[in-house]
Amino acid sequence: MANIIKASVVQASTAAYSLPETLEKLEKFTCLAKERDGAQLVVFPEAFIGGYPKMSTFGLVVGDRKLEGRDEFVRYAKAAIEIPSPTITRIEQVSKDNDVFLVVGVIERDNGTLYCTAVFIDPKDGYIAKHRKLVPTAMERTIWGQGNGTTLPVVSKAFANSSREAPVVETKISATICWENYMPLLRTWYYSQGTQIYCAPTVDARPAWQHTMTHIALEGRCFVLSACQFAQEKDYPPDHAVANADARNPENVMIAGGSVIINPLGVVLAGPLRDAEGVLTAELDLDDIYRGKFDMDVVGHYARNDVFKLSMVDPAVASKAA
Amino acid sequence: MANIIKASVVQASTAAYSLPETLEKLEKFTCLAKERDGAQLVVFPEAFIGGYPKMSTFGLVVGDRKLEGRDEFVRYAKAAIEIPSPTITRIEQVSKDNDVFLVVGVIERDNGTLYCTAVFIDPKDGYIAKHRKLVPTAMERTIWGQGNGTTLPVVSKAFANSSREAPVVETKISATICWENYMPLLRTWYYSQGTQIYCAPTVDARPAWQHTMTHIALEGRCFVLSACQFAQEKDYPPDHAVANADARNPENVMIAGGSVIINPLGVVLAGPLRDAEGVLTAELDLDDIYRGKFDMDVVGHYARNDVFKLSMVDPAVASKAA
Amino acid sequence: MANIIKASVVQASTAAYSLPETLEKLEKFTCLAKERDGAQLVVFPEAFIGGYPKMSTFGLVVGDRKLEGRDEFVRYAKAAIEIPSPTITRIEQVSKDNDVFLVVGVIERDNGTLYCTAVFIDPKDGYIAKHRKLVPTAMERTIWGQGNGTTLPVVSKAFANSSREAPVVETKISATICWENYMPLLRTWYYSQGTQIYCAPTVDARPAWQHTMTHIALEGRCFVLSACQFAQEKDYPPDHAVANADARNPENVMIAGGSVIINPLGVVLAGPLRDAEGVLTAELDLDDIYRGKFDMDVVGHYARNDVFKLSMVDPAVASKAA
Amino acid sequence: MANIIKASVVQASTAAYSLPETLEKLEKFTCLAKERDGAQLVVFPEAFIGGYPKMSTFGLVVGDRKLEGRDEFVRYAKAAIEIPSPTITRIEQVSKDNDVFLVVGVIERDNGTLYCTAVFIDPKDGYIAKHRKLVPTAMERTIWGQGNGTTLPVVSKAFANSSREAPVVETKISATICWENYMPLLRTWYYSQGTQIYCAPTVDARPAWQHTMTHIALEGRCFVLSACQFAQEKDYPPDHAVANADARNPENVMIAGGSVIINPLGVVLAGPLRDAEGVLTAELDLDDIYRGKFDMDVVGHYARNDVFKLSMVDPAVASKAA
Amino acid sequence: MANIIKASVVQASTAAYSLPETLEKLEKFTCLAKERDGAQLVVFPEAFIGGYPKMSTFGLVVGDRKLEGRDEFVRYAKAAIEIPSPTITRIEQVSKDNDVFLVVGVIERDNGTLYCTAVFIDPKDGYIAKHRKLVPTAMERTIWGQGNGTTLPVVSKAFANSSREAPVVETKISATICWENYMPLLRTWYYSQGTQIYCAPTVDARPAWQHTMTHIALEGRCFVLSACQFAQEKDYPPDHAVANADARNPENVMIAGGSVIINPLGVVLAGPLRDAEGVLTAELDLDDIYRGKFDMDVVGHYARNDVFKLSMVDPAVASKAA
Amino acid sequence: MANIIKASVVQASTAAYSLPETLEKLEKFTCLAKERDGAQLVVFPEAFIGGYPKMSTFGLVVGDRKLEGRDEFVRYAKAAIEIPSPTITRIEQVSKDNDVFLVVGVIERDNGTLYCTAVFIDPKDGYIAKHRKLVPTAMERTIWGQGNGTTLPVVSKAFANSSREAPVVETKISATICWENYMPLLRTWYYSQGTQIYCAPTVDARPAWQHTMTHIALEGRCFVLSACQFAQEKDYPPDHAVANADARNPENVMIAGGSVIINPLGVVLAGPLRDAEGVLTAELDLDDIYRGKFDMDVVGHYARNDVFKLSMVDPAVASKAA
Repeated sequence: MANIIKASVVQASTAAYSLPETLEKLEKFTCLAKERDGAQLVVFPEAFIGGYPKMSTFGLVVGDRKLEGRDEFVRYAKAAIEIPSPTITRIEQVSKDNDVFLVVGVIERDNGTLYCTAVFIDPKDGYIAKHRKLVPTAMERTIWGQGNGTTLPVVSKAFANSSREAPVVETKISATICWENYMPLLRTWYYSQGTQIYCAPTVDARPAWQHTMTHIALEGRCFVLSACQFAQEKDYPPDHAVANADARNPENVMIAGGSVIINPLGVVLAGPLRDAEGVLTAELDLDDIYRGKFDMDVVGHYARNDVFKLSMVDPAVASKAA
Repeated sequence: MANIIKASVVQASTAAYSLPETLEKLEKFTCLAKERDGAQLVVFPEAFIGGYPKMSTFGLVVGDRKLEGRDEFVRYAKAAIEIPSPTITRIEQVSKDNDVFLVVGVIERDNGTLYCTAVFIDPKDGYIAKHRKLVPTAMERTIWGQGNGTTLPVVSKAFANSSREAPVVETKISATICWENYMPLLRTWYYSQGTQIYCAPTVDARPAWQHTMTHIALEGRCFVLSACQFAQEKDYPPDHAVANADARNPENVMIAGGSVIINPLGVVLAGPLRDAEGVLTAELDLDDIYRGKFDMDVVGHYARNDVFKLSMVDPAVASKAA
Repeated sequence: MANIIKASVVQASTAAYSLPETLEKLEKFTCLAKERDGAQLVVFPEAFIGGYPKMSTFGLVVGDRKLEGRDEFVRYAKAAIEIPSPTITRIEQVSKDNDVFLVVGVIERDNGTLYCTAVFIDPKDGYIAKHRKLVPTAMERTIWGQGNGTTLPVVSKAFANSSREAPVVETKISATICWENYMPLLRTWYYSQGTQIYCAPTVDARPAWQHTMTHIALEGRCFVLSACQFAQEKDYPPDHAVANADARNPENVMIAGGSVIINPLGVVLAGPLRDAEGVLTAELDLDDIYRGKFDMDVVGHYARNDVFKLSMVDPAVASKAA
Repeated sequence: MANIIKASVVQASTAAYSLPETLEKLEKFTCLAKERDGAQLVVFPEAFIGGYPKMSTFGLVVGDRKLEGRDEFVRYAKAAIEIPSPTITRIEQVSKDNDVFLVVGVIERDNGTLYCTAVFIDPKDGYIAKHRKLVPTAMERTIWGQGNGTTLPVVSKAFANSSREAPVVETKISATICWENYMPLLRTWYYSQGTQIYCAPTVDARPAWQHTMTHIALEGRCFVLSACQFAQEKDYPPDHAVANADARNPENVMIAGGSVIINPLGVVLAGPLRDAEGVLTAELDLDDIYRGKFDMDVVGHYARNDVFKLSMVDPAVASKAA
Repeated sequence: MANIIKASVVQASTAAYSLPETLEKLEKFTCLAKERDGAQLVVFPEAFIGGYPKMSTFGLVVGDRKLEGRDEFVRYAKAAIEIPSPTITRIEQVSKDNDVFLVVGVIERDNGTLYCTAVFIDPKDGYIAKHRKLVPTAMERTIWGQGNGTTLPVVSKAFANSSREAPVVETKISATICWENYMPLLRTWYYSQGTQIYCAPTVDARPAWQHTMTHIALEGRCFVLSACQFAQEKDYPPDHAVANADARNPENVMIAGGSVIINPLGVVLAGPLRDAEGVLTAELDLDDIYRGKFDMDVVGHYARNDVFKLSMVDPAVASKAA
Repeated sequence: MANIIKASVVQASTAAYSLPETLEKLEKFTCLAKERDGAQLVVFPEAFIGGYPKMSTFGLVVGDRKLEGRDEFVRYAKAAIEIPSPTITRIEQVSKDNDVFLVVGVIERDNGTLYCTAVFIDPKDGYIAKHRKLVPTAMERTIWGQGNGTTLPVVSKAFANSSREAPVVETKISATICWENYMPLLRTWYYSQGTQIYCAPTVDARPAWQHTMTHIALEGRCFVLSACQFAQEKDYPPDHAVANADARNPENVMIAGGSVIINPLGVVLAGPLRDAEGVLTAELDLDDIYRGKFDMDVVGHYARNDVFKLSMVDPAVASKAA
């Protein structure tokens, strides 16, 4: 008794803010996941397209902005993509060519504001939805805007079934970016919408991240697929900020990775991968969700809707109750 | 720059459903924490008073109850305590004698129903509040009732300050029992009420528990004090159910422990203690809460009250907003 | 034909994060405004209580936080005040002693999050309301949370009339902090609530600020009272960040001022004051509001409510229409 | 790193209500802007076609209209133009001949009502859109009707790029006439629609106008192109009202000008031009919009859509959310 | 077969912008209508409280405002009243003392904008509703704002019946001010809401007014009660504008009157009164409405709802269909 | 400054239901208007062709129809005309011969239903449009059907200009029959479509009709041309019903006339003509429409499209907005 698909997380960096090179990496890793591992779903890290400007301060101090910081922002804004755009079209092509569903972290540009976004690309239908990070963390607040209730999709997708039980596996997929994963109400919202494949693109490489990923798998009784960047100084523009400007070295690690795949009972299926680029792949048996919800369903038998009420405000469709 | 108190968690078992013996253990471990470690706050495990009937089925199968099971419940109900009661008075005395604030897991009897409860006992004011577990897990649902919005206290307590910065340290204390800790809305409620010392009495001894404890410390930017039972077959009545009836052995471990104290940045301060009774103590620098909330406050700057609205229904005072 | 009150703006700095010294400055300048100029209303700058940590980065770069930055945040959080608190009581006393209505910029601490707040203190009724800044700017987003619709007060106040026309002058007072003044919907909301004395505590010392202040006076047909800090390096803790660490000099200017009082026809009544501490005072003839609204009332005869609809979400009282 | 176009504002008067002569002036100034300065976009003042009847009262007092005033209105109505009409065709020809995009203030006649309108004329596509002033000011209310939500266009236009970065510069252009510029909700609507080249045809020659233009550039992070009339008594019909009928002099100034071009950081690029006809031209680097929106985007990261909701009623297509 | 009430219209002027004297006139004429004629309903002219600034230009010419005009506006704004206010209380007292329902034209001040308003005052319930003029005429647009769909009341009132048929006469009362009476959609709205006593406060003293009043009675099958001011130069402040400044004479007529009462079949019941102050009273037999609607009911059998649809937008209660 | 045409209204009766004789009258009066007065447009009364069966009951009582009544209807139906038909051709010839635009009231037969219709006949283009009365009045409802949204034309026509200002005068012409003139939404529709020459064929000879005609001219700022029948008993078949069957007299007046021409400011230009056949002619200066719309345009600057929305359902082209 099993309903099985194969899913991968890619641990890799943006290519020095170069859109063409980064798209080549996206294609290369998608092919690898497909050809080597038979992946049907591939998750790329936060800000993979557009880049994560780690260590930069954009010339900011409290109460002052320097013109060089504004110029750096112009460069960063131009490296970002619009939706739709030729870049989206290109990603759709990669998805289609490899017959792989993609969840990709991108920096999205909309009018004058940037957003940290994850796009959902279907091999048949192309771009179908996006999630914009709700709360940027610390310095990120100075460069990214905030998403809202209109961009919290949980998308349905039927994959071919590796088990003989049935021809297809129906799944529901969501994305939560980096420290959004610490927002209990956001997670609860996704659980209430039935997420089963909980994608967590990130650039958080702290070991503590593993605790949170395992906790979420246990709490939400879902598969957690966390894709983190692995980046070195050479993956950034040469003039980009680094941890120690006196010891610049192309091999210095900027983001150490920690990508991982965990099942709904808290069992780590693959990874965590640290200190290298790479692709992790695992078989996800969707039936494990029932195995887990047997004794814990925080939006079902383990909820106390009489005590706690959660509502989500979607400006586009008024208000829905969780 | 510091605001420091000393707190302990006790890892121990109920004494074979014997109330007098268990109260003696309570006194013994409180004295130890105070005298050896200087503890000002001590947390005891879930169901410490009354006992956690691990391995029992109370004669239940789906659709049928056996008389022996009913008799077993009578014995269990009698081991439970009422609030107030002489037992509470006795615990108040222990608290006063040692000048220690106590959070103790008890089985509470109220008319014909039992509750899994944590009581808050102040050395000066005695019993001040209780929390009743909101959702029992699996078989627990056949022996315990459910708490509600009237018993979700976050109590204020000023302790003497071990640092010179100020004479007292103002704190807020809450209790969340066992798998309640997986309820994201309950946790969010406590965070919104300002909990700083998040007590987690439990009997969950799985290694995975550590992930959840660390996650909560990080998510809530609070100190997590998890007190688990360590119990062997000898700590239960002789006829009590065991894992393997063919291999009864007084030394067999029933509940393996795993008590732990973690700070708001996810750093483990003491424990986890496994496979033994004992007392863990740590210095809690309340300023670490600001250090943590600097970049993560899920009920403050990291909340999205415009997107998600949480309300709690307290039957006693209508509805309060989180 | 006139309805006249006297109002002042104070241009001064926080005293090196020292609460007692800053409160003394608050008292000194309030007395000066009262005794020298006969002020009935005095506005203090943004973050006057608590301080504006100009030039600091709090150890932040994108994607990383340093422990020293967390410690700096602890110091800053402790310099902030709660509402109510002894500090508020002290400010109430200053207001009462001098019979002066005060609008004071403070850093407010609520649980683990700080807010940039303005408090309204009535000489008779004491603290009556507060406004929390809705959107911090750039780096401020890493240290302050966001206000919401519950803290957008427009308070009514009757002052003694300096003209013989009537014994009292009825006024409505609001506060908008620093770059909030660029938010057209926030301003429109205040206009719709009838603000007449539009206080603008700030730390923005750019010359361009004057254009915006004059524009608001013209647009809103209200008196604009902008109080800016004037701060030098000596007004900060000795280890505080400065523009040029190699050229520390106690006399170096950190915030250059630019406080100003403008009438509803765009006429500058006092200031702008630059490069010094000081108190500006002007007579406000409330009848100038009618003179101005004669041909421009953007929430009355010059609005197009049939084309544009603005609504404000006050979580405390559902939603009100502007 | 730059995306540059050249744009001009024309400061000139209507030719004594004479349509043929005024069209000649329109052609002359368009040629000058093109040939001398290389302008790709030229903005003409409010009511340039049709005329601004400054100082006239149209025989009106409260409660009474004189027949001579009605006759003056007939003359004024006949000087106005319909859309489409041969006049529009002629302007299209000027635009095409010079390959210049035109934004021209006109008095539009529709049935029995006149409107103060700005037309957008593309060198290739001819007339593409119009904006009708929403609220006439003071006496204007007796001669002009009100526009509504159907005439608030923000038009897209790709210009050749003076920089090498890319062959074309994509822009968005809007028009706001005279004191409409004080309407915060109208401005916010245009910002939300992405206006980048904010044209402000006017006849307001007060010095205070400069404050408002600079504020709008800063608030909206857009280029502001304000074209004002410069008119003398000789530019009106000989019997037209003047400021002082006893001192008629053809050289007396009726409207003193003040045209100006400002960038998104509030820097004045050209002008203000006063007391003369003329053409101001500036290079607009569209990248300055990103430089500005880095720390201020009032419809993006600096909006509070959770607190304030703005909607626009377009009678033609129901209602759109901002 | 009859249902009869007695109603009056008062033809009188404001007392030189003096509120106390005007209120005395209001009381005097109400008493006269009551005592002499037995009136149960009395209608006062447009702007009776506050005044109609006939012949004034408020210093306005197209494109310019003089400071004296602003000062005149201040005087005029101060003569206006707020709702509620002591003036309203005073009118309520007059209504109560005389047991007369009052419809009174007032100049209403709300924040910085003035409105031309009619208030409905019930002898028992006091102030119950107001109507704000929707479109000021010509120069009025420079001094008054516009009402909207929230202030279009049709109020129900039961009067004692002068006939023996029944003890009370149920009526519905509306007010339409001056040239609003030319707005066919506004009239249709009132008809659709069942107006029976159509009050038309005005200052229009043209003989042509009589045609319009009779037409409305016929079209709407309602009683039309038009109360016009009769004003001479002496009824204005001494410095007020007059038709001929060289021939000021206190007796010169400024507004000549023309008050009239007409029944639903177009029969004039009283008046028109010209060139004098005075009170007109008539018996209104409400049964005449049925007599008229027999062959003409423009919102009933004589409507073509299949061809024409009218809707009214009430911002306060969404949209109602007529 | 003028734009002038000459227009006539004919006051005459049908010739005893005789089509040939009535057409001769039509020709005779058209020639007279043309030759004597220079008319370019001539309006004939309601039901001029076909006849207005005044005083008849067609044998009807409620709940019963007599056979004689049916026979009378047969006679009446046969006197009616179809469109197109030889009668229409004949009228076209009259129009062409005299170079006069005709608006003629006819009884139109379409299959088994009669309509009270006005036809528009152009001297060059012949029949161009028709209007069918929307709501017959009282007994008319037993003999005529109802028009709908497909027959509400406002036709454009350029006439030679009697003034030197321009060679032609562009006009818009509509027709509204008898008590349709009391329908405010129908009138508003015509105004919104730009009617300038508002023709009102009628048989309403009440003096009150004059009030309504003047009101419409003022309300719509259009020329009103009302052509009424003048009919005596001799103008009907000998057996036709009369007011007093005991006092039949060929000279008795059946319809007394009241034709009139009024300008957009409410000034009567010709008539009213009573108690005789005849032709009234007047010069229409179309510029008077601007003189009138200067201060009143109920579908332009004096409309409140934000408060009231009128739509017209044209079954032929779905729905158009007014």
